[in-house]
Amino acid sequence: MLTDFNGLFADRVMRVQKSFIREILKVAADSEIISFAGGLPNPELFPVADIQKACNDLLEEEGRSVLQYSTTEGYAPLREMIAQQYRDQYNLDVSADNILVTNGSQQGLDLLAKILIEPGDRVLIESPGYLGAIQALSLYQPEFVTVPLTDNGPALEAFKQAFDKPVKLYYSVPNFQNPSGVTYSAKVRGEVAEILNNTQTLLVEDNPYGALRFMGEDIPPIKTQVGNQSILLGSFSKTVVPSFRLGWVCADLPIMEKLIVAKQGSDLHTNYFGQRIVHHFYTRGNIDTHMANIKEAYRVQRDAMVNMIEKYFPENIQFTRPEGGMFIWVTMPEHISSMELFDLAIEQKVAFVPGDPFYVDGGGKNSFRLNYSNANPEQIEAGISKLGDVMKKMMD
Amino acid sequence: MLTDFNGLFADRVMRVQKSFIREILKVAADSEIISFAGGLPNPELFPVADIQKACNDLLEEEGRSVLQYSTTEGYAPLREMIAQQYRDQYNLDVSADNILVTNGSQQGLDLLAKILIEPGDRVLIESPGYLGAIQALSLYQPEFVTVPLTDNGPALEAFKQAFDKPVKLYYSVPNFQNPSGVTYSAKVRGEVAEILNNTQTLLVEDNPYGALRFMGEDIPPIKTQVGNQSILLGSFSKTVVPSFRLGWVCADLPIMEKLIVAKQGSDLHTNYFGQRIVHHFYTRGNIDTHMANIKEAYRVQRDAMVNMIEKYFPENIQFTRPEGGMFIWVTMPEHISSMELFDLAIEQKVAFVPGDPFYVDGGGKNSFRLNYSNANPEQIEAGISKLGDVMKKMMD
Repeated sequence: MLTDFNGLFADRVMRVQKSFIREILKVAADSEIISFAGGLPNPELFPVADIQKACNDLLEEEGRSVLQYSTTEGYAPLREMIAQQYRDQYNLDVSADNILVTNGSQQGLDLLAKILIEPGDRVLIESPGYLGAIQALSLYQPEFVTVPLTDNGPALEAFKQAFDKPVKLYYSVPNFQNPSGVTYSAKVRGEVAEILNNTQTLLVEDNPYGALRFMGEDIPPIKTQVGNQSILLGSFSKTVVPSFRLGWVCADLPIMEKLIVAKQGSDLHTNYFGQRIVHHFYTRGNIDTHMANIKEAYRVQRDAMVNMIEKYFPENIQFTRPEGGMFIWVTMPEHISSMELFDLAIEQKVAFVPGDPFYVDGGGKNSFRLNYSNANPEQIEAGISKLGDVMKKMMD
Repeated sequence: MLTDFNGLFADRVMRVQKSFIREILKVAADSEIISFAGGLPNPELFPVADIQKACNDLLEEEGRSVLQYSTTEGYAPLREMIAQQYRDQYNLDVSADNILVTNGSQQGLDLLAKILIEPGDRVLIESPGYLGAIQALSLYQPEFVTVPLTDNGPALEAFKQAFDKPVKLYYSVPNFQNPSGVTYSAKVRGEVAEILNNTQTLLVEDNPYGALRFMGEDIPPIKTQVGNQSILLGSFSKTVVPSFRLGWVCADLPIMEKLIVAKQGSDLHTNYFGQRIVHHFYTRGNIDTHMANIKEAYRVQRDAMVNMIEKYFPENIQFTRPEGGMFIWVTMPEHISSMELFDLAIEQKVAFVPGDPFYVDGGGKNSFRLNYSNANPEQIEAGISKLGDVMKKMMD
């Protein structure tokens, strides 16, 4: 019988709390609530019929092999497909050998931290930052250093200053960042690259939302300017479906070699049937129409939210106007607490995520995140107008 | 540009090599080779039609929800089903709250190590030991302590001695162990429990093969005698299919809480579509017939291998006679090297896994592992007779 839980757990897990967002999502799961809290893709857009066809084709054509153990690196044609996209789109010098299939890009980050981070290593993150990254990285006990985000990417003076001492890794979400919706401009990418080029810091470019650009021009990853110093993370969760947990890492070969060792220890390989379904969908389904549908739907939902914010929110708030992705970031006057707003909004059956948890070093108390990908324009109008009413009352 | 790879990687990953078995499996993948090297279930026995039916039912009945993000803990009815089995079979006091669905039991072990192991913690493992466990645990830099296996479980004197200093965790595979095929007898389980009861050591009972018992009587887990000191790991890889990477951890609630935090950081949740397919198969498919078929097939294959070893191997070898699972362990006279045997056997187009890699502290050089689950009786006769010829020549 185990009686003494003191000292049972490793230090690394004692500092990390359950995700705050998880608790919020439980509240928001009430079906009467209009929720802008989650980060879920719209399930109406899932390619259900294509996936069903893929399941039937695969099980009829090669049922035994798609259900067997597979390789740690992932399904070779899927890895080649991912590499090909990088070559075609950005002229990157990568092959299937540079691609490791992971359980969502979240696992890519966990494996990178596992092979790279010693306790106390300085890790630079955006502020506000992606919660999943903060949680994954925290378990390896780094010293977090933060750089504030502006409308065009990291604030460059603060970014430069962060390198006064060596930085092991810079975790970034350059396209339609979660939670802010911010995209690094081409100019800022160039300046970030220039600073990084004078260091041995590894850049992680996490890009779950890049394919969800519904207006404006795509901007190449910083990797095009920093070579093997950048590691790319990608995901099929927002383009195909989240349920399979499929993402990837694109890294230089010496890093890949260690990632494979870590992946073997973690779970041998990623769900192989899911890999085959996604590959089938890309090669034999209608991915182009599917992506066009998603982008059009999210553009309509984003426009609805932007318009409703302009119509119903008080004038002294600021908000981002993303050209893609799933999130808008709202900043209220400094004295207004988004946690208080949350409590009042829940009474009115509207949910969002307050800003605090996205900051590892305080801040964000007057900010919050809105998600528009999983609500239709009618829900958006109803929810935003209620939220505007609550904010106006608070500010009176 | 990254130019300096010295000092790039964390210490934890520098001591772990790529899996030796992986390299062997590459050699054994040649279709002309009769391979007893892998640990693959027989794909002829996969329930392909049931899985296809599950895919179609699920996608037609609730296509959107089975493809969306899900909870970190796993699909609640699947967790309840697992808990129910423990209650029914062993009268264990566990509920769905004690079950975390993981990417195979391998991830369960990785998460346990992540929340429990500090560098230098003493971790006790069986010798020979399961390679995947050695690899997963090594990344958390424990001090490995080993206990030799006898035909009935760990050698008890050595087991007792291991507790002269505190042991954080004892990793065991009590049923049809990989690589040895050994099962802990009821008597040894009682003695192990008695020793553990005087400690605060956590016992991990990994049980991927327990359901593959084709003769003899099932023996309850040690958990029935040590309560919350035992953590159970389970897997659907050998009973349903490996491709989905589905397993679970069964642990006390304070441990579960930390496991969930670690799982969130690692990959948010496990492949949800796969969880739903497996649950569908158990509740709406014919699992009993399926399990009976697997056990009967493996019994036939095991008997063929035992008979052929008796017929073709030299008399001065020893081998285990498992009552379930997938492996037989062969021990040759001390001066005979299984690595040399491997090289000669490959020339004759027969593969197995030499004993060395299963030992963290040397030993096993005259032993090797044979797998019988993925070869039919004809292949078994052909392969074992060739292997016997090579051994006899080596011994002359």
